[in-house]
Amino acid sequence: MSDKPLFTLIKVGGKIVEESATLSRFLDDFATVRGYKLLVHGGGRSATRLAERLGIESRLVGGRRITDAETLQVVTMVYGGLVNKQIVAGLQLRGMNALGLTGADMGVIRSTKRPVGEIDYGFVGDVEAVDARALCDLVTQQGIVPVLAPLTYDGRGGLLNTNADTIAGEAAKALSAYFTVRLVYCFEKPGVLRDENDERSVISRLSRADFQALVSDGTIQGGMIPKLENAFAALDAGVSSVLITRADHLSTESGTLIQNTF
Amino acid sequence: MSDKPLFTLIKVGGKIVEESATLSRFLDDFATVRGYKLLVHGGGRSATRLAERLGIESRLVGGRRITDAETLQVVTMVYGGLVNKQIVAGLQLRGMNALGLTGADMGVIRSTKRPVGEIDYGFVGDVEAVDARALCDLVTQQGIVPVLAPLTYDGRGGLLNTNADTIAGEAAKALSAYFTVRLVYCFEKPGVLRDENDERSVISRLSRADFQALVSDGTIQGGMIPKLENAFAALDAGVSSVLITRADHLSTESGTLIQNTF
Repeated sequence: MSDKPLFTLIKVGGKIVEESATLSRFLDDFATVRGYKLLVHGGGRSATRLAERLGIESRLVGGRRITDAETLQVVTMVYGGLVNKQIVAGLQLRGMNALGLTGADMGVIRSTKRPVGEIDYGFVGDVEAVDARALCDLVTQQGIVPVLAPLTYDGRGGLLNTNADTIAGEAAKALSAYFTVRLVYCFEKPGVLRDENDERSVISRLSRADFQALVSDGTIQGGMIPKLENAFAALDAGVSSVLITRADHLSTESGTLIQNTF
Repeated sequence: MSDKPLFTLIKVGGKIVEESATLSRFLDDFATVRGYKLLVHGGGRSATRLAERLGIESRLVGGRRITDAETLQVVTMVYGGLVNKQIVAGLQLRGMNALGLTGADMGVIRSTKRPVGEIDYGFVGDVEAVDARALCDLVTQQGIVPVLAPLTYDGRGGLLNTNADTIAGEAAKALSAYFTVRLVYCFEKPGVLRDENDERSVISRLSRADFQALVSDGTIQGGMIPKLENAFAALDAGVSSVLITRADHLSTESGTLIQNTF
């Protein structure tokens, strides 16, 4: 066990933070997390809804939003404005000194525009560097709880749309230089399930060997595979543990705990 | 002359920051301002445009936006997201370590919802307190250039819409505890004009006595009167000087310099 201070980095999806009742419950639970902490949020549903009202078509490929110039404006408004600021205000109310950040603010997350391959994702950024020193100073010296929107800075005066799971993973890796980092993905389900139709079938501990076996036999499939691959990559890069849980289980610490070995 | 360090607080209106060409020129000029600095921006035109596209009626009384719940969402998206983050990214590009803030972020600007009088302004906040200590630490200890959106925190988990001129004035007053503050209002005209149809008729220096005389004889009228009253109130509260100038004259320091006496 390292003697670095504990840091909890929580990623919460749009479904939870975009409705005031679930957001409020989530923020109550988040308030119970002790020690240094940071929140990364999504907001895709609100972005899709706003785009629809503006007559802008939302195109998603494998869950990733094709981001043309108009869509970049939409996600900048929704992620950087609406969702981020509602969370910040809600945390302030609960006594946490929250500060909302995109990657451009203090230059905390630099990215490069994804090269056009088979698919042109448009204004989508792949994370290049997280300024963990700046985040570390904010939390340790100023008692700040950073709230990261899924927008990064391209280093050329522009913002890029970046997946919130990825931001959480990259921030967790970078912060591992200063902290013992617990990375928590809040999810609609109570954890990784053996049977996707049975919420009681949560796999409580998952090692890399277990993961490989469960992918091979088809138990783990679909969107959970990249999520777990990200989790193991984070562990390889120094993150202490990854927990996949349901947002309303945050205070109980139940869910699927992921480590390289147990 | 006080020996407090110089601090320049610049307010720029929506018209300039909402178009990429004028924004870009403005940010180039802002980059030339030396020493500690902070930017307060508007964004009303973009808010009106977005509201229109969403079929939400914009109602303004004396230049102030009636802010119902839907309109609050619009201004949170536009001021806190779109406009603020474009400025932040543009400043980062120019080598300034910008950080976008609403009043909820770090709780920097607390306000109270305006009481319903003859007019119900809705979710509009009157500034109660600016955390100058937090802003001071950001600029002096971390080299940050804060970028304030015209949104304040109600202390109860919500945001409120607040006039950007007012935020600039209140922030300038509060920062005067730590700095010799120059408050600069960037304006569409090159300064306060003797003849509103003649841009060469700029009044270069305006004392309180001059102001009263020019209001009495009808030279200064309309929206300029509250703007100047704010300026004198800021001077009374310790702000060192107020300059009203055109955004593209920022680097020349021409315009109308306002002081209690000369």
